[in-house]
Amino acid sequence: MPNPNLEQINSPADLRALDRRQLEQITDQLRAFILESVSKTGGHLSSNLGTVELTVALHYVFNTPDDRLVWDVGHQSYPHKILTGRREAMGSLRQLGGLSGFPKRSESEFDAFGTAHSSTSISAILGMAVASRNLGRSERQHIAVIGDGAMTAGMAFEALNNAGVTPDINMLVVLNDNDMSISPPVGALNRYFARLMSGQFYATAKNMGRAVLQHVPPVLELARRVEGHAKGLVSPATLFEELGFNYVGPIDGHDLDALLPTLENLRSLGGLQFLHVVTRKGQGYKLAEADPVLYHGPGKFDPSIGVQKPATPPKQTFTQVFGQWLCDRAEQDSRLVGITPAMREGSGMVEFHRRFPRRYFDVGIAEQHAVTFAAGLACEGLKPVLAIYSTFLQRGYDQLIHDVALQNLDVTFALDRAGLVGADGATHAGNYDIAYLRCIPNMVVSTPSNENEARLLLNTCYEYNGPSSVRYPRGAGCGAEVASGFDTVELGKANVLREGRRIAILGFGTLTNAALVAGHALNATVVDMRFVKPLDADLLNELVATHDAFVTVEEGAIMGGAGSAVTEFFGSQGVSCPVLQLGLPDAFIDHGDQATLLKQQGLDAFGIENSIRARFADLLFVQDKVVSR
Amino acid sequence: MPNPNLEQINSPADLRALDRRQLEQITDQLRAFILESVSKTGGHLSSNLGTVELTVALHYVFNTPDDRLVWDVGHQSYPHKILTGRREAMGSLRQLGGLSGFPKRSESEFDAFGTAHSSTSISAILGMAVASRNLGRSERQHIAVIGDGAMTAGMAFEALNNAGVTPDINMLVVLNDNDMSISPPVGALNRYFARLMSGQFYATAKNMGRAVLQHVPPVLELARRVEGHAKGLVSPATLFEELGFNYVGPIDGHDLDALLPTLENLRSLGGLQFLHVVTRKGQGYKLAEADPVLYHGPGKFDPSIGVQKPATPPKQTFTQVFGQWLCDRAEQDSRLVGITPAMREGSGMVEFHRRFPRRYFDVGIAEQHAVTFAAGLACEGLKPVLAIYSTFLQRGYDQLIHDVALQNLDVTFALDRAGLVGADGATHAGNYDIAYLRCIPNMVVSTPSNENEARLLLNTCYEYNGPSSVRYPRGAGCGAEVASGFDTVELGKANVLREGRRIAILGFGTLTNAALVAGHALNATVVDMRFVKPLDADLLNELVATHDAFVTVEEGAIMGGAGSAVTEFFGSQGVSCPVLQLGLPDAFIDHGDQATLLKQQGLDAFGIENSIRARFADLLFVQDKVVSR
Repeated sequence: MPNPNLEQINSPADLRALDRRQLEQITDQLRAFILESVSKTGGHLSSNLGTVELTVALHYVFNTPDDRLVWDVGHQSYPHKILTGRREAMGSLRQLGGLSGFPKRSESEFDAFGTAHSSTSISAILGMAVASRNLGRSERQHIAVIGDGAMTAGMAFEALNNAGVTPDINMLVVLNDNDMSISPPVGALNRYFARLMSGQFYATAKNMGRAVLQHVPPVLELARRVEGHAKGLVSPATLFEELGFNYVGPIDGHDLDALLPTLENLRSLGGLQFLHVVTRKGQGYKLAEADPVLYHGPGKFDPSIGVQKPATPPKQTFTQVFGQWLCDRAEQDSRLVGITPAMREGSGMVEFHRRFPRRYFDVGIAEQHAVTFAAGLACEGLKPVLAIYSTFLQRGYDQLIHDVALQNLDVTFALDRAGLVGADGATHAGNYDIAYLRCIPNMVVSTPSNENEARLLLNTCYEYNGPSSVRYPRGAGCGAEVASGFDTVELGKANVLREGRRIAILGFGTLTNAALVAGHALNATVVDMRFVKPLDADLLNELVATHDAFVTVEEGAIMGGAGSAVTEFFGSQGVSCPVLQLGLPDAFIDHGDQATLLKQQGLDAFGIENSIRARFADLLFVQDKVVSR
Repeated sequence: MPNPNLEQINSPADLRALDRRQLEQITDQLRAFILESVSKTGGHLSSNLGTVELTVALHYVFNTPDDRLVWDVGHQSYPHKILTGRREAMGSLRQLGGLSGFPKRSESEFDAFGTAHSSTSISAILGMAVASRNLGRSERQHIAVIGDGAMTAGMAFEALNNAGVTPDINMLVVLNDNDMSISPPVGALNRYFARLMSGQFYATAKNMGRAVLQHVPPVLELARRVEGHAKGLVSPATLFEELGFNYVGPIDGHDLDALLPTLENLRSLGGLQFLHVVTRKGQGYKLAEADPVLYHGPGKFDPSIGVQKPATPPKQTFTQVFGQWLCDRAEQDSRLVGITPAMREGSGMVEFHRRFPRRYFDVGIAEQHAVTFAAGLACEGLKPVLAIYSTFLQRGYDQLIHDVALQNLDVTFALDRAGLVGADGATHAGNYDIAYLRCIPNMVVSTPSNENEARLLLNTCYEYNGPSSVRYPRGAGCGAEVASGFDTVELGKANVLREGRRIAILGFGTLTNAALVAGHALNATVVDMRFVKPLDADLLNELVATHDAFVTVEEGAIMGGAGSAVTEFFGSQGVSCPVLQLGLPDAFIDHGDQATLLKQQGLDAFGIENSIRARFADLLFVQDKVVSR
């Protein structure tokens, strides 16, 4: 039997041609490849080191791509990408024009469903399983791999609940239980998983193949369970079996001797199967095992020494500005409570959690609940601040409308990752929040142009007694110094940055800085609008009387965006005035470097200037000749 | 002990002053009052007859309004309204200026949280319970009453999951299990509830007070459970106890002798309690017990003879047009599958379900799952049609973006109840879909102007190989005859209804008919735009060359709406042209008769004409003088 080589595996068919005993060498090579590759490109590491054996086992046992395999969230799909013909492309991961960091249907026929947001996999695979049933493809298998965190989201439950009563389908849900290594369990379900594993896991795992995989007749199955209870053991199966699945596990997700026979048996059983697999994030790389959070999504690093702190501290991010503000404000106002749907680190709430544990709420991956929970807190006079990514608030949209805005409750939404998000790409785009928020009555929508404005607008929105939002982008701003304290600005009042002539450029958010550069070049008026809603009506009326044309600039979809708020206002005033709307086009924009992407969209200073020159050539020509109004 | 009189109960305090033995008379009077009242106003009946005893018991045992009581969905809150000072106002229920059909914070201090959309109550009450804890109000109780259907929604699970690990709170979840009378159980959870009740229910209920309400020490509790298992009984408690609640029940929700001592015990226990109550929809009114669906939300009727079929059949509704189309299309195309999130009747899918049971999917109250499930079906080449109310699609917004639109999957969204919805009011408003859909890349957004157009656009969107939507209002249209067959229109092409001068009125949806009347009066051009996205660019360019002003008319929020799509288009073409946008204002509009509400918003023919005259008086003056262009 020759030594297998990862370089010869160009599709799962190559993998399936190997002898079962050769697989362990493949997993070793795969793990080394991932470490090497991610250390060069940056990307998700811990989760992918944790799914090496599971990925090999799934592709070895199942007939992909004809059997459907969906990776929930998908940031653990690098081993899958490598085994499905994309090994050599891994050097381009998450870079402009390169591989996506998530499964993507257009990238490979092995990516049965595009994922990135959490907890969609069971719904999608159920749809596929039902389709196969209705199309007479009864032999096809359908597998969803979902993490213990993702399982806490309501839509995963909705899908399980629906699947449990759907007859005649083949569907395997693999719960990839990461041994609770990232965060303390935040929900009752995670606590339940921990109980399933506690004590009995290592003893049970080795026997699993024999014990539970026989097709036990119902009566014996009942006897087995009663016996289990009589011994005082926690039943390992109740919850998912109550929902109609055959629960198997927990088994060791790094042990091919456990994984392969179990998956083979589950494949032959068919029907509704639920496999509980326990893995360790960062498995096989000591530094990542020890600190899976640090290695969750590192930048480039040297695998031999690990992730190092940068010599010079990077610029302060908007997330950090928010985190500092939250702590300062909480110290000053005991009514403040902070909520995150499972994004403590990403939303800058680690310090707040440490200092104000009873006022910090990580509700799990549960955006719907997060919003209505905030509404409930607000009803009692507390002042909830919900930190949430723009793209994830899409999950709580109805709750924002029905529970917060309609009741005019005092909830402050801190929207991180608004606009283009860089390496995560289109799935995480924060392009739509201006459009989907401003059409909702009672909402305040604010768009800080820099770090200091972010704090000013957080203060302003926090003090506003109603629903409000502050949107800010991923990463650092222009580097504005942030004043401490609790200064506010007047609600709905803009800030004129530059007085020019003929053309008024209205900036909404951080692109205002590029707009200002363009404004200098064009001798245009430039305004930091600060608020999309309410708009500064007085200023707009003043500007329309003194200018010939308007340009709106925003890092968000043009359709329905801030620029349209301006045209609607002019329309309502009976004013007809040329407005050039600059922003993001009506297209999903793939991953890539943020600055490059903005430039591609003509949203750097140069692009903004050029767009204005092209559209208002006549006005500028007149101006260049210094013909005064 | 005098006979109590419902008329003397003006608040729960009056109720609590009664002797426990007087309560049964109150429940009898309450039930009679509800029947009498709803038969005069229309409204929800079955659900309210089912909650009479539960409502009396809750207000008798708990110290409302200081103790917080949240009714999930809230269409079962009429007994609550009657007991909390709104008895005499019940004659105005769901009418313009009258009582809301749902709990509403602005209506009463006893309405701790406004509800209407399903499954929000546990999140809200958890927020309140945490607030009370943090504010040192440890004696306060917090109760959510939620139906078995509402419990299937993901956000209810998210809230339970979060509550189960939240320390030091008082929170009681009352599961109001309606004995599965409305529909067959659609989810595994409902099947589980049925198992909890099966066989043992009536035997167990009477003993419940004694058996489970002692504060059992953990060891004895374990013994009790093991004993239960050994007897071969299904454990009645597992699922909710696994999530951290103390499960009690099921008990008979019409038996005050069971309800009162149980609630008293739960109140004194505090902590996380879960009470499973079984009620019967329509209880006490034989006709409603026999047909709870018919009596779910009847119009006016004579209680002595019951709901009668109208002598003349009412006009065909858009819902019926959709239902007929769905059946016709399914017969013609085997790839069609139909999905509803628990709105079979409301969405007109009863006949489709009957005729195509394997292609019909009621996924439960689970909008998130519904959308991604549809995406999964579409991946395999089926053609899913998701019938969903505009207001409920807000719950599946992220899934629509991330799973359907981003992957450009072939899912047709049939959006019912778009625009003003009448008696249900602001919570159900379908005002935002145009704004929140058209900003999403790849989406087709269409707005039929009448019944026949609805069928044409359903055909067109169905044949379009990508994500598309057809929005239509509640109720009947103008009565256009619907051609059978599968005719389509060209995607993105408008239909010029009338050629006039100077002013072009662009209608999006059913208000186009009123716009046409106004257009006649004003000799304006009138266009049935059919599509918000893609817009008919050619036609708009043609019209802008031949007209002086535009008016857009839509039954949706002006902010971000179809009118803004038009101004954005003009802006992108460098065209500056006056546009008057008519539509719904930036406000939540309360319940009331649809036609009256539209008139109040100036969206009847007269109002549209007046708005145009006011805005474009100069143009019309010129036109009246027959000055040609």
